[in-house]
Amino acid sequence: MNSKRKKIPHNTIARLSLYLRELNLCEIEGKKSISSSNLAVATALTDTQVRKDLSHFGQFGISGTGYEVKQLKATIRSILGKDGILDVVLVGAGNLGSALLSYLGFTQEGIRIKHAFDIDTRKIGQTISSVKIRDIETMEELIKKEGIKIAILTVPAFSAQKITEILIKSGIKCVLNFAPIVLRVTNGTLVRNVDLSRELDFFSYFLKQRDNT
Amino acid sequence: MNSKRKKIPHNTIARLSLYLRELNLCEIEGKKSISSSNLAVATALTDTQVRKDLSHFGQFGISGTGYEVKQLKATIRSILGKDGILDVVLVGAGNLGSALLSYLGFTQEGIRIKHAFDIDTRKIGQTISSVKIRDIETMEELIKKEGIKIAILTVPAFSAQKITEILIKSGIKCVLNFAPIVLRVTNGTLVRNVDLSRELDFFSYFLKQRDNT
Repeated sequence: MNSKRKKIPHNTIARLSLYLRELNLCEIEGKKSISSSNLAVATALTDTQVRKDLSHFGQFGISGTGYEVKQLKATIRSILGKDGILDVVLVGAGNLGSALLSYLGFTQEGIRIKHAFDIDTRKIGQTISSVKIRDIETMEELIKKEGIKIAILTVPAFSAQKITEILIKSGIKCVLNFAPIVLRVTNGTLVRNVDLSRELDFFSYFLKQRDNT
Repeated sequence: MNSKRKKIPHNTIARLSLYLRELNLCEIEGKKSISSSNLAVATALTDTQVRKDLSHFGQFGISGTGYEVKQLKATIRSILGKDGILDVVLVGAGNLGSALLSYLGFTQEGIRIKHAFDIDTRKIGQTISSVKIRDIETMEELIKKEGIKIAILTVPAFSAQKITEILIKSGIKCVLNFAPIVLRVTNGTLVRNVDLSRELDFFSYFLKQRDNT
């Protein structure tokens, strides 16, 4: 492993995702190369930022024509560890969980929701976007058996902490948490929160500040 | 307006949301006060952080018993501008949009999705969680008429920029964007992105780093 790669800041990683998305579009459109300024426009960043980010990973720019799409895409995919399919489980097949099953099934490249789990016997056995909803009682065994590392958590707040502990025991290392609660996890587990009510609180504050100036 | 309030950092605002949520739970449970250490445990923060955050807004702590729930809740609500109901429009009533209509209807305090819009004639006229889906052609007029400032955007990436421009023209100041695209907006518009594929890319990178150490 190249030790340089460990120093990539989180914000750069977030931007690499954006570049990758744009490179995928370029490929669909049949473009062979893209300039740093076009990459900047597409990602609402500055030319300088794009050049700086990509300079972390060696020389891709070809003077006059820009970056070679195929090569840059392969490199970013490799940095992000997107070389194969990433298996994910989804826990909680309520309104939001069911929607994510449909949504992620169609839109995500390199991601596969392998299993969905719920506690509700009316849901268990149903299939959404080819993913079967299973009894949460079988979750720990199945995750362990298949070595899955990523979980999407769309359960109610009151059960989120307890389920997270089972997930960690099962070997899950990354949790994308939609429950409106701060999860307490052990070291070595990465939690990212999608917290809609916090986002809306930001808006509320922003509008209040605006009205008061 | 107290000028001190303008200096509250974004991260503090995000934490105020968490405190408010915990105070709501306290109120439901009939608790009259909460100590900074209990507030810290509930939000997975440190005692010091909680005290520091809340010290921005005057003295709430009562020696020995902690913070007075009702008073602190009212103050945080006021800081966040959550004094009344915040009206929101949702654009794009596909899988994710429909799920958010159901989900936000039940879980959000102080938020009301006033209207939903779609371009699909099969959806227009339907009602989800008491919200009627309307023709996107009527969007600009309705938002202007009602002075709504917040939009949730759950449309496909290819139409997101165009719709955002219409929203801004209509008077929208805050966009919660679920489309996997970087929106270009004018000054004075706040965009917050919920980007699931970027979150999953983070996980991918995290797992790769972990496997390489």
